[in-house]
Amino acid sequence: MAAELTDPTGLTALPLIERHRETLDKGLAAIRTREYWSPYPEHPKAYGDGETGKAAFDALLHSRFDLDQPGTDGWTGGEVSPYGIELGVEYPHPDADVLLPAMRAALPAWRDAGPETRAAVSLEILSRINARTNEFAHAVMHTSGQAFMMAFQAGGPHAQDRGLEAIAYAYAEQTRTPERAEWVKPQGKRDPLSLRKDFKAVPRGIALVIGCNTFPTWNGYPGFFASLATGNPVLVKPHPRAVLPLALTVKVAREVLAEADFDPNLVALAAEQPGEGLAKTLAVRPEIRVIDYTGSTAFGDWLEANARQAQVFTEKAGVNTVIIDSTDDYSGLLSNLAFSLSLYSGQMCTTPQNLLIPRDGIDTDAGHKMYDEVVADLAAAVGGLLGDDARANALLGALVNPDVKSRLEAAPSVGEVALASRAVPNPEFPDAVVRTPVIVKLDGAKPDDEAAYMTECFGPVSFAVAVDSPEAAVELLRRTVREKGAMTVGAYTTSPEVERLIEEACWDESAQLSLNLTGGVYVNQTAAFSDFHGSGGNPAANAALCDGAFVANRFRVIEVRRPSGTAS
Amino acid sequence: MAAELTDPTGLTALPLIERHRETLDKGLAAIRTREYWSPYPEHPKAYGDGETGKAAFDALLHSRFDLDQPGTDGWTGGEVSPYGIELGVEYPHPDADVLLPAMRAALPAWRDAGPETRAAVSLEILSRINARTNEFAHAVMHTSGQAFMMAFQAGGPHAQDRGLEAIAYAYAEQTRTPERAEWVKPQGKRDPLSLRKDFKAVPRGIALVIGCNTFPTWNGYPGFFASLATGNPVLVKPHPRAVLPLALTVKVAREVLAEADFDPNLVALAAEQPGEGLAKTLAVRPEIRVIDYTGSTAFGDWLEANARQAQVFTEKAGVNTVIIDSTDDYSGLLSNLAFSLSLYSGQMCTTPQNLLIPRDGIDTDAGHKMYDEVVADLAAAVGGLLGDDARANALLGALVNPDVKSRLEAAPSVGEVALASRAVPNPEFPDAVVRTPVIVKLDGAKPDDEAAYMTECFGPVSFAVAVDSPEAAVELLRRTVREKGAMTVGAYTTSPEVERLIEEACWDESAQLSLNLTGGVYVNQTAAFSDFHGSGGNPAANAALCDGAFVANRFRVIEVRRPSGTAS
Repeated sequence: MAAELTDPTGLTALPLIERHRETLDKGLAAIRTREYWSPYPEHPKAYGDGETGKAAFDALLHSRFDLDQPGTDGWTGGEVSPYGIELGVEYPHPDADVLLPAMRAALPAWRDAGPETRAAVSLEILSRINARTNEFAHAVMHTSGQAFMMAFQAGGPHAQDRGLEAIAYAYAEQTRTPERAEWVKPQGKRDPLSLRKDFKAVPRGIALVIGCNTFPTWNGYPGFFASLATGNPVLVKPHPRAVLPLALTVKVAREVLAEADFDPNLVALAAEQPGEGLAKTLAVRPEIRVIDYTGSTAFGDWLEANARQAQVFTEKAGVNTVIIDSTDDYSGLLSNLAFSLSLYSGQMCTTPQNLLIPRDGIDTDAGHKMYDEVVADLAAAVGGLLGDDARANALLGALVNPDVKSRLEAAPSVGEVALASRAVPNPEFPDAVVRTPVIVKLDGAKPDDEAAYMTECFGPVSFAVAVDSPEAAVELLRRTVREKGAMTVGAYTTSPEVERLIEEACWDESAQLSLNLTGGVYVNQTAAFSDFHGSGGNPAANAALCDGAFVANRFRVIEVRRPSGTAS
Repeated sequence: MAAELTDPTGLTALPLIERHRETLDKGLAAIRTREYWSPYPEHPKAYGDGETGKAAFDALLHSRFDLDQPGTDGWTGGEVSPYGIELGVEYPHPDADVLLPAMRAALPAWRDAGPETRAAVSLEILSRINARTNEFAHAVMHTSGQAFMMAFQAGGPHAQDRGLEAIAYAYAEQTRTPERAEWVKPQGKRDPLSLRKDFKAVPRGIALVIGCNTFPTWNGYPGFFASLATGNPVLVKPHPRAVLPLALTVKVAREVLAEADFDPNLVALAAEQPGEGLAKTLAVRPEIRVIDYTGSTAFGDWLEANARQAQVFTEKAGVNTVIIDSTDDYSGLLSNLAFSLSLYSGQMCTTPQNLLIPRDGIDTDAGHKMYDEVVADLAAAVGGLLGDDARANALLGALVNPDVKSRLEAAPSVGEVALASRAVPNPEFPDAVVRTPVIVKLDGAKPDDEAAYMTECFGPVSFAVAVDSPEAAVELLRRTVREKGAMTVGAYTTSPEVERLIEEACWDESAQLSLNLTGGVYVNQTAAFSDFHGSGGNPAANAALCDGAFVANRFRVIEVRRPSGTAS
């Protein structure tokens, strides 16, 4: 099959590229127009009855997840679902001195296959992952604590979309330069100078993807597919609490690569022993030339400072702000924000934390509302949204780890509680820790309160910060983004002047802004092919998902020039 | 004029963009096809009789070069031409605490003007620089030591080409994302979700260009125009021995910006006091978010490690190799290499240093030639090329500084001299230090010789290194590129097997390869729009001139999304 796949003319009808060229072209069009598009349905009914996927997931539990990788020096595991189930899956632990050379040996054939073949193989991997979306949904649910529907959508089709988006950007970037050019420079009356120039996209080396606990696939796929599609072998080091979704990904990738007659060692898993700190060891290996990381600011900063041999792409922590200045749809504002604060118990890097509200209140279509009223109404909206336990469970999911629970429990100590958190019983999973969000009132003019609202408090905690004026809100927004970073900024205003101030602040500080969301789109959600996730221009992340900069430095273009007419 | 220039519809006929849109479009086409193209003639006759330019240059000497910049706290200068002339020009010395805020204040209007207006203004700057090419030629000659014709071409139209290339890449990258998108997501039987999304390219902040002594314009223009065209104010810190060409550039840019009703402080000069180390101070200022640097590896590495608040693009030192395996045009090989070694006294970052020749010799169209014969024939070719003093002066130029002279004088101590350097008298400039290249024989199998050939010896010094076989040559090439970096690799071979080995080495180590050059194209020359200068993938440089990666991270795309149909 490889002989067909690597056909240098690119004209022969090829099985894989035939199957995926239209999808690739639609993806390329979507990243240019940024209109709505997705090849992967988000409705579960598109994926059958779900029983097969559930059974496939169950069959993985309490077993050894063999990937047939070289350099396996033992087995490791120990994932416990936030819903209380012990997964009992054991993964290969790598001997990097064996595994990395095996991966490096796989590189030349993958490099020489060219961008189109790499895109086709990558799309086939995504396609097979998509077909197993139900299985992945359970794996994501029982590692991240997301509720099933969110695990299904965000961990399934939405993650696949982000992977496809990265493949499209990688393909576009690599094919900006032609494979060959004839260069003829006139020399007046003398013969022209002429050269044949061949250009090849060559990868940096081995890429390392360091996964996170909350969105193993959604945050992992952009880097994974961007690196693979640009020719780099990819080593995946999952978060120790969220190995299974990425182990499944690696397994599918290895199967597809082998079927396409490439070395399956182009993709491998690096599961770690408890407390091993494997990411830190791998990240500074000379073979590792690209790193994608999602997680804490401390380790992201460490990677940027220390993994100097690699291109490092990080998504770290931030403090997300929503400015509430005025609205012509007060009930829409309340319901939209209540949903944003509740979804996955606020455990999204995009969840708003600081709600800045003028202490004199805001103008709304329901009359002027003082700061206290706005906060009380928002608390009531959250309470109403989550009043029914079944609905609360479906929205909140479970707290991903004990640190989130600790932060939630500490939140009432920093200010007046406007909405207390409550424990929601989960009849199906009695050990799941399910909690509604807490809203704490703080005063932006009190220096003592600043320590709280200027620190990321990851989880279902938000601060209703009273500010002196819209201008003061914008100034605090600027300072927060500059000093702490932000993945998202939201704002509600009917004032063109205030809107302009907020836009200027976001342009100056490189933050992505959602204005006046009152319907079914939320500040903490972004759509692949259309929305940029993060900006790469403030401390929350050094890259955006996904743009040219996210792919352009994962490979280099190497030129061979020779006199025209000579043999290659 | 600004009102016209910033016309948001982009439909009105605008003076500047009318003047330059065709040039921009041709540049955009050229970077896609990589065929020959240049808008700037390289023949002096296209620029008049030269007297006006010479007079303009003379008028600059022994005077104060006023730029009317804010934050000038004194005057500094002291350039002495490598041809022996004291330039006597004084430049403003900056008070960064005043100048940088003034530059930052100029940013929003430039950002808001958009990519097309920025491209048009940047092209106007280049166009006015082009019109003064004769004046720039003298300024480059008397700071770099290049001979006049080279200063004219490389410092004039070829540098301008590289600037235009960067503008084209910047424009293409910023316009990959549309200014606006309507996003409509179907929701089955319910109303679709719809959002209006506005995208804006926002600059990183202030960009710093740190110029070099040998190619102040050619190496300075890519970063200068890439940053300016992506919306960043640009502060130019020239090499203290090569201020004038970049001061002229800054002056032209400020004039054009002011005429287009932009703040001229978008571009400023930072000339330093002797021994001040101003680059080091400026590079870590928080306002500086992009840095372009050409120069020593030591300072380039320091910038990459310490200027962490900035995107850092470096071109550092390398050790360039030519493998001589076999040829079907022995005399072409000799004359081509002789020229490459002689041009600008080997003071190009692209000049070959190590010539790897099998000790058993090479097959040629003139019979088999043993190592000693090849070296002797090459020495004779260089000697012949430079036998005439007038021609030697026109090719060699002057040694740029005493360090180069010291290295040249030390070279004979490391091995057997195959070609001795000779001093060439320059009747017009008796104080110019003009020297022909030295060729020293070394043995690749002798560990003692390695210290010499594995170190960059910048200047007219090359090493003819005897190797055991073509395979040994390729292995040494690989190691040299990996450990020391390389801007160029050259090779002569008629063997497809050896050619393939060399290509593989260049793909693996990210080095740009020129094969079998025997005519009028030389390994040390690259053409804008077609050839990549450096690869960005080996230690000689972390960026290539010019590609998507060179521009994509100089700006970020900020999105503002709001419900469709609402006011902006």
